[in-house]
Amino acid sequence: MSDSILAALSSLSIQAEEPRAALHAPVNSPAAWESALSALPASAKPASYRMIKTLVFKPKTAKSETPVPVMVVTDESTQSNTAAIGAHLKLKELRLAVPELLHATLGATKDDVSPFSVTTDNASKLRVLVDQDMVDSNATYAVHARSASETVFVTGATLVAYLSETHVPLDTMAFSSLQAPAPAAPAAKPAPKAKVDAKIADAELIGITVRKDLDFPEWYQQVLRKGDMLDYYDVSGCYILKPWSYFVWECIQRFFDDEIKKIGVQNCYFPMFVSSDVLEREKDHIEGFAPEVAWVTKAGKSDLEKPVAIRPTSETVMYPYYAKWIQSHRDLPLRLNQWNSVVRWEFKHPQPFLRTREFLWQEGHTAHLHKEQADEEVRHILGLYQRVYEELLALPVVPGIKSEKEKFAGGLYTTTVEGYVPTTGRGIQGGTSHGLGQNFSRMFDITVQDPKATDETRGKPEGRLHVWQNSWGLSTRTIGVMVMVHGDDKGLVMPPRVSQIQVVLVPCGLGVKVPQDVKDRVNKTCGDIAEQLSSRGLRVHADLRDNYNPGFKFNDWELRGVPLRLEVGPKDLESQSAMAVRRDTGVKTQLSLESLETSVPELLETIQRDMFTKAEAEFRAHRKVVTSWDAFTPTLNEKNHVIIPWCEEEACEDQIKDRSARIALAGEAQDERAPSMGAKSLCIPFDQSPYPAIEGHVCPQCGKPAKRWTMFGRSY
Amino acid sequence: MSDSILAALSSLSIQAEEPRAALHAPVNSPAAWESALSALPASAKPASYRMIKTLVFKPKTAKSETPVPVMVVTDESTQSNTAAIGAHLKLKELRLAVPELLHATLGATKDDVSPFSVTTDNASKLRVLVDQDMVDSNATYAVHARSASETVFVTGATLVAYLSETHVPLDTMAFSSLQAPAPAAPAAKPAPKAKVDAKIADAELIGITVRKDLDFPEWYQQVLRKGDMLDYYDVSGCYILKPWSYFVWECIQRFFDDEIKKIGVQNCYFPMFVSSDVLEREKDHIEGFAPEVAWVTKAGKSDLEKPVAIRPTSETVMYPYYAKWIQSHRDLPLRLNQWNSVVRWEFKHPQPFLRTREFLWQEGHTAHLHKEQADEEVRHILGLYQRVYEELLALPVVPGIKSEKEKFAGGLYTTTVEGYVPTTGRGIQGGTSHGLGQNFSRMFDITVQDPKATDETRGKPEGRLHVWQNSWGLSTRTIGVMVMVHGDDKGLVMPPRVSQIQVVLVPCGLGVKVPQDVKDRVNKTCGDIAEQLSSRGLRVHADLRDNYNPGFKFNDWELRGVPLRLEVGPKDLESQSAMAVRRDTGVKTQLSLESLETSVPELLETIQRDMFTKAEAEFRAHRKVVTSWDAFTPTLNEKNHVIIPWCEEEACEDQIKDRSARIALAGEAQDERAPSMGAKSLCIPFDQSPYPAIEGHVCPQCGKPAKRWTMFGRSY
Repeated sequence: MSDSILAALSSLSIQAEEPRAALHAPVNSPAAWESALSALPASAKPASYRMIKTLVFKPKTAKSETPVPVMVVTDESTQSNTAAIGAHLKLKELRLAVPELLHATLGATKDDVSPFSVTTDNASKLRVLVDQDMVDSNATYAVHARSASETVFVTGATLVAYLSETHVPLDTMAFSSLQAPAPAAPAAKPAPKAKVDAKIADAELIGITVRKDLDFPEWYQQVLRKGDMLDYYDVSGCYILKPWSYFVWECIQRFFDDEIKKIGVQNCYFPMFVSSDVLEREKDHIEGFAPEVAWVTKAGKSDLEKPVAIRPTSETVMYPYYAKWIQSHRDLPLRLNQWNSVVRWEFKHPQPFLRTREFLWQEGHTAHLHKEQADEEVRHILGLYQRVYEELLALPVVPGIKSEKEKFAGGLYTTTVEGYVPTTGRGIQGGTSHGLGQNFSRMFDITVQDPKATDETRGKPEGRLHVWQNSWGLSTRTIGVMVMVHGDDKGLVMPPRVSQIQVVLVPCGLGVKVPQDVKDRVNKTCGDIAEQLSSRGLRVHADLRDNYNPGFKFNDWELRGVPLRLEVGPKDLESQSAMAVRRDTGVKTQLSLESLETSVPELLETIQRDMFTKAEAEFRAHRKVVTSWDAFTPTLNEKNHVIIPWCEEEACEDQIKDRSARIALAGEAQDERAPSMGAKSLCIPFDQSPYPAIEGHVCPQCGKPAKRWTMFGRSY
Repeated sequence: MSDSILAALSSLSIQAEEPRAALHAPVNSPAAWESALSALPASAKPASYRMIKTLVFKPKTAKSETPVPVMVVTDESTQSNTAAIGAHLKLKELRLAVPELLHATLGATKDDVSPFSVTTDNASKLRVLVDQDMVDSNATYAVHARSASETVFVTGATLVAYLSETHVPLDTMAFSSLQAPAPAAPAAKPAPKAKVDAKIADAELIGITVRKDLDFPEWYQQVLRKGDMLDYYDVSGCYILKPWSYFVWECIQRFFDDEIKKIGVQNCYFPMFVSSDVLEREKDHIEGFAPEVAWVTKAGKSDLEKPVAIRPTSETVMYPYYAKWIQSHRDLPLRLNQWNSVVRWEFKHPQPFLRTREFLWQEGHTAHLHKEQADEEVRHILGLYQRVYEELLALPVVPGIKSEKEKFAGGLYTTTVEGYVPTTGRGIQGGTSHGLGQNFSRMFDITVQDPKATDETRGKPEGRLHVWQNSWGLSTRTIGVMVMVHGDDKGLVMPPRVSQIQVVLVPCGLGVKVPQDVKDRVNKTCGDIAEQLSSRGLRVHADLRDNYNPGFKFNDWELRGVPLRLEVGPKDLESQSAMAVRRDTGVKTQLSLESLETSVPELLETIQRDMFTKAEAEFRAHRKVVTSWDAFTPTLNEKNHVIIPWCEEEACEDQIKDRSARIALAGEAQDERAPSMGAKSLCIPFDQSPYPAIEGHVCPQCGKPAKRWTMFGRSY
């Protein structure tokens, strides 16, 4: 057999810049492969190659038996006819394996899984079927080497050789010989019953099956779905916001809407459609959005005379009307806001909440007579965004101003609140408040007569002022940041102020031997407490389901991140107390039933405060002042943001990005930005007081005099 | 000349079913034309005809002079090059005439205007230019005969003959000879300054220029725009909801959202995009929507692999996920709602709020274990819709059930609240709450195990239950009905509970002779009262603009329909009182300043109640019981709804519609439904108690035994 492996190896086509001795050494055992693979650097692409498809199916299995999944390996473009494959292997009802099964069998996620996931250790847990056509084609294939972030290039023959060495039960057959697929099942049935049934049968798999720190992308997906925040949707890049996440958005809306109304902002609604003429009015601005604009070209069966766009943002939609509505300085300030959705048809890898093709947001658009008023508003709104993060979501942010390179296209300057995801060390833009200056008002001719115009200038162009404009927006991205920062290996951790359920009551200690009247009293007490606390404005749920035991309920509510659990059992009734368990820390406290109305709200506020304090300390600990270039990238690589005395020149920012680029952190999102991600400037913090006086400092990258301390980092 | 007219008349191509002697008689004077036109019945269409375009322009005119507009008549498909026309006529800066000018010159609206709007009486006020190409083509043209609801079919030569007889200054020229258009002005500048300037220069034109009862469509447009409810938009069928109207929607949202949360409904958000597979899942249902579905086929410059639709409603979007989420009867009831916008690309004439291509609404979608629970919810939600109309918008509605013909496609039954617009006598569907039965749950396989399943049926199809579903929706159409019913010749009349400003304070009696300190005190008092009442939760504005006199301000706020005006002058200060003027009735009351905190809220509540009472009495007076067919259409024609003892058979409903069709009421909306609009069943009122026992009654149309008293009417 080792002859054939050596032959196969000659077809290896790995290209990389690093030394790769290991790859050329004879590899004649899985262990040697292991070490060869682990030594692999990021591979450059060969001139020509094809993509591989690795599918893992679960056959129908008696409940008493452990399922033996089948890995099917073929060319990505090959239609894999599940029914025919099943018939060939004599297996019934093949279904794509659920993530839990994938993980249990191969320790891999759907995205990572590859033939190299099979090892001598797990080879007994599954069987493999390789498409002989792949082998026969002699083509080079791109294959994940253990995780999706690393890729090697091999032939089908090499793969077969590798798999043989693991001793996994291996079949090959030419997929081209398979019959045409049977008629497809009704389309878009999102959840085959088999899948759902599997989940329920294996209740221990309902929890999160991966560790947050080891497989963050998979953890994020699981925590969102199992925590009931969202569901996946059959249009790519779009997600369903379920009530559990939408409630968070409603809390943000209520707070922010009340606050902007206090300063005279009014809500309105502009149509979602934009004519191409209007969209393309401001060239600099639209350049940034054009590749992502979705176009409606048909209605029913008719082609529209002129296609219409769906708004990616509303500057050019609204400002022609501002020109019309603003006729006098008495019409100023004009402050409008809308709660709507916008569409940016990104072609990058989508991420729930962080990068989606449609997202919910608010967009404020205001016009002022003087720059001072406009500037004041920009900062006031940014302050509200900061409060949304800090006071509602218990997330620390750094407010500051964007560099010229990173500011809003077409605006004068951009202020931002910048968040931080500790697990990946990446920053995330939390919300932006833009001073647009007079750029748009010149473009759209939004002018008023200068109240100070003289008799000579009145009525003439020089007697007119272009208004000063702002725009500002905050989106459902907020929710994604909250999940990423607070969640843990058990699931979501919800800040009490935005949790749809703040307190869950779970009756405990009601085993079969407990008399019915005691059970009834315990259940009734739970219901009574829920009602009593609800009447005090708390959001409380009593989980009185009789078909689940307390342990299941604990897991269930922990998965969803309910901040506080109150356990009540027969002994608690005797002592007139309840056991309170914090979701964030797991700490238990005995509370007297008599004083729940005060102790529970206090405890919730403590949780809210502690969650913020913890996240704040973590962010703070990862903001490192760096003054020499040598320390820059290493500091970054330790999941830090770096604060440098910066020259604020755009060319230097490009240099910093290039020079700090490297393979992204292991376990990072599948994102084409990741493999070469460099640091960019996140913001110039308004608060420069924590840092030494800037005078005398030079930019560590280019050596020019520094202007302000600036925060750099890798970011989403 | 009369020879040429007789010749021209021979080309008349009017087809109608009614006797039309008048049309064949010699018509050799405008007066004779007048009578011929007025005798015209609704014309059926000839086999082949073209559409006419009638544009009225205002040339640049010295302020001291009365403008002489130019009517340009050409084929609808002809590009009318304004610059070339102006050059030909030696006129500068032709702009489309504002509605006010159109009305003053021709007594017509933009939609009604036609060559027949020119009469011997108004011929001296304008000039006309006819496209010779139209005459040369010998084509038959469809032309409005005075109003848009009546159409005649004539040749270009006939039009020229008619116009000559009116002695209007008449030019003809071949438009095909005009030069290519000069480069267009920047596109989509929505308000040429000339237009806006014209309005401001002629301040008396700021008010509504037509009477509600004489030109309802024009009145509706003016009251919406001048009352600041909305603005027109450059994508046809879409409108901008300005804060003044959006606030009404926010009031409705707040009320309804609070109420549905009380019964356990949760909000969520599904994507606006739908794949074609999913959209087309339920055939009966989608058939009703398919012709109006907007399709996104491109993103940036790339064609999408599969076009995606924008949701017209969300049944088929949501229910595949319901099938997935509902696994057990413990997951029921599932009650979700979303506040969003939907798109129905109607090709009918759009009407702000009533028929728009995108509109805002809420859509609730719920699933229940038993029919009884579903039915109970249908009625509860309908009750909330009734409260929105009656308690917030001061509008009476009749709740009832739709006929089989009028129910929601794919549902089991539809309940509705039906409103009434007195000016037109037309009904309007206010909101619908559908019992979907098990139709969708069968289609989407939404089942649970019957909690009463026996050992034999458990786990088998016969042991599973299909859930009972409802859907219910209320849209921004509500706002249109409110405007149509309450508005008057002075503008909007806003119900206090939904008015963004409930009370406006206007300082009065501050002529030039009044000392400054008195002026200051009056202004300060107004400001203080506003602040004081605001602190009590009222929405109050003090109009302290110093560049407008009180008369202007009165008109301004009356136009916007502010329910209560408080006038405060020097004499009021002395007597420590204010004059309160009600918008709805104009009634004035002296109020003591001391007790404003109680008298003003009371007065607002009185206004709210009185507005409802008045509208309710009007609707009630126009619901007529009719038991003989002879009385049916005449009663309808008197702007009534008719209540008949009905057989409830679909064929009979078709008959009623056909037999009651006639030329729509004069002054009706421009709507292709109008010319032949027959009555349809609006609802079978739940409350049958006002009517005699149904037994023994027969359907007046078909003579079959009647089942229930049913409300018929013409409707929007």
